[in-house]
Amino acid sequence: MELVSRMLSGDRNALARLISLAEEERPEVPDILESLKDHLGRGYLIGITGVPGGGKSTLVDRLTRIMRGKGHSVGIIAVDPSSPFSGGALLGDRLRMQQHCMDSEVFIRSMATRGAHGGLPGTVRSVAKLMDASGKDYIIIETAGVGQTELDIMKIADTILVVLTPEGGDSIQSLKAGLLEIADIFVVNKADRPGSEQMVQNLLSLVHSPTRYPWWQTPVLPVQAANDVGVEELWCQIEKHRAAKEEMGFLVSSRTDHRVQEFRERVQDELFSRICRHLDRSGRFAKYLKKVQAHETGPSKAAADLLNDNAFWDEWYREEREGRGG
Amino acid sequence: MELVSRMLSGDRNALARLISLAEEERPEVPDILESLKDHLGRGYLIGITGVPGGGKSTLVDRLTRIMRGKGHSVGIIAVDPSSPFSGGALLGDRLRMQQHCMDSEVFIRSMATRGAHGGLPGTVRSVAKLMDASGKDYIIIETAGVGQTELDIMKIADTILVVLTPEGGDSIQSLKAGLLEIADIFVVNKADRPGSEQMVQNLLSLVHSPTRYPWWQTPVLPVQAANDVGVEELWCQIEKHRAAKEEMGFLVSSRTDHRVQEFRERVQDELFSRICRHLDRSGRFAKYLKKVQAHETGPSKAAADLLNDNAFWDEWYREEREGRGG
Repeated sequence: MELVSRMLSGDRNALARLISLAEEERPEVPDILESLKDHLGRGYLIGITGVPGGGKSTLVDRLTRIMRGKGHSVGIIAVDPSSPFSGGALLGDRLRMQQHCMDSEVFIRSMATRGAHGGLPGTVRSVAKLMDASGKDYIIIETAGVGQTELDIMKIADTILVVLTPEGGDSIQSLKAGLLEIADIFVVNKADRPGSEQMVQNLLSLVHSPTRYPWWQTPVLPVQAANDVGVEELWCQIEKHRAAKEEMGFLVSSRTDHRVQEFRERVQDELFSRICRHLDRSGRFAKYLKKVQAHETGPSKAAADLLNDNAFWDEWYREEREGRGG
Repeated sequence: MELVSRMLSGDRNALARLISLAEEERPEVPDILESLKDHLGRGYLIGITGVPGGGKSTLVDRLTRIMRGKGHSVGIIAVDPSSPFSGGALLGDRLRMQQHCMDSEVFIRSMATRGAHGGLPGTVRSVAKLMDASGKDYIIIETAGVGQTELDIMKIADTILVVLTPEGGDSIQSLKAGLLEIADIFVVNKADRPGSEQMVQNLLSLVHSPTRYPWWQTPVLPVQAANDVGVEELWCQIEKHRAAKEEMGFLVSSRTDHRVQEFRERVQDELFSRICRHLDRSGRFAKYLKKVQAHETGPSKAAADLLNDNAFWDEWYREEREGRGG
């Protein structure tokens, strides 16, 4: 495919076009990604999640500047409605971002979340792969840590930063379990605000008891991204985590896990959306639905009856077979 | 069924046993619920959701006391890890709750959420129906408003209270859209704390612009549940909402919507879990999974190939048919 070879030779427009195809979930995308297989795995994926308003985008900006200073190219995927990368920001933030937009070694793409509280869009993986294949050394995925997204990022990223602020005491309480599970590095951003010391101590005590991996002790870093304080130290910790993960052979095994998980989810998601589409067209489903509407049969009983109805399955099987041209 | 008739004649142990069957999703449950069809719909469902630590359980306690004072029987379903009803509470809270536990006209059941950020368990609907059939005048469902649960409660409850506190400024920002969409009544609890007046004003301005229904203007009530301030007024508003909803014919139509939604979800959920179970057993799935593990085929391509593989579908169809004994 011409677009693919143009992208591989560094054409930004070709990358942008391919990303659009992936976002639209075009049927040719699996074959495109397959043809890129030998170009995948060089880029390193950093996931950044945390409370809304925690200053994640400023942090991404500062980290990008450091990476560029070391000569690394960077891809940024912002899946965060409040991110200046995705458009929800003050003018000052946006102007700051533009500096990176002009840099040909930085590629930024923003994406919508799936539903109000929904997880990462399934297409994030494909977009990250395209950035990886295009030669980006680091790919940063910024997500708003509300609901499902922070669990999803765990299935994609190599190193995960969880960003909190001293004000977010409440949020820690509620998100504690989920966040502890996924954080490779905790960042207490806006560390010049009151309560930051306490927050760092609280997190340290949570983090210290049961370590997730014997080879990694999750650090808790006070950072002031807006004032460029602590970001170099954060960068060092990211590199340290990467080195430890690689050395332990864990990078390879976790990426295999990610691939397996992606395969399973893709099959499940596709089957599920076919089911939903089928239900909308199914004469059998409509028949039982009418009974539910008329209060003739209760929802549980109607569901059980439908799934016991051979005609329902035959209908679906026929439709599927015709869809495959079989 | 003997258990059913015992429950209908007021036996609390029979109700508890039936609820356990529903929670275990026993295959006989659809038929049990079907046999109760004529006993359903008399109870009125109140959903209470909001930020963790917002004092929802104290509110439930105070509302229950008012309802009991008017001679109503009450069922309480607590799907909230921090609820004293579910066990996550101070000793004082628990002692307070015990007062209701001794009351034969109050039935309390706590349930776990589905996953860390997961929605309401699918069995909440069945449990609520059993309480309804057993003759409870009001059924209160208390959920922690994190993630998906507050959207789920919308599909079940007749009147929805959203409980916030003056401290929860941050949370409003992030949950605003979802909460506005579902609240029939806003409660600003702990209204003796600073910022409460401001919070009420903020919510009022959000609530006032686009009303969801022409027949209902969402009230915003300052309440101090712990000091028993404002709870009577809240009770009046619940009754007012109920009366308006009934008068407009909206209670009937929204309950029909709820039934239709439940039917569709039950079919989808059951089909999805059958898919997942099938994948674990499927020889075809295992074949492609191996290719993904060995890095031979990428996940997207492997998923597309599997779903194009007639043998995969034939395998499933055969399994399903055998499962139905067809």
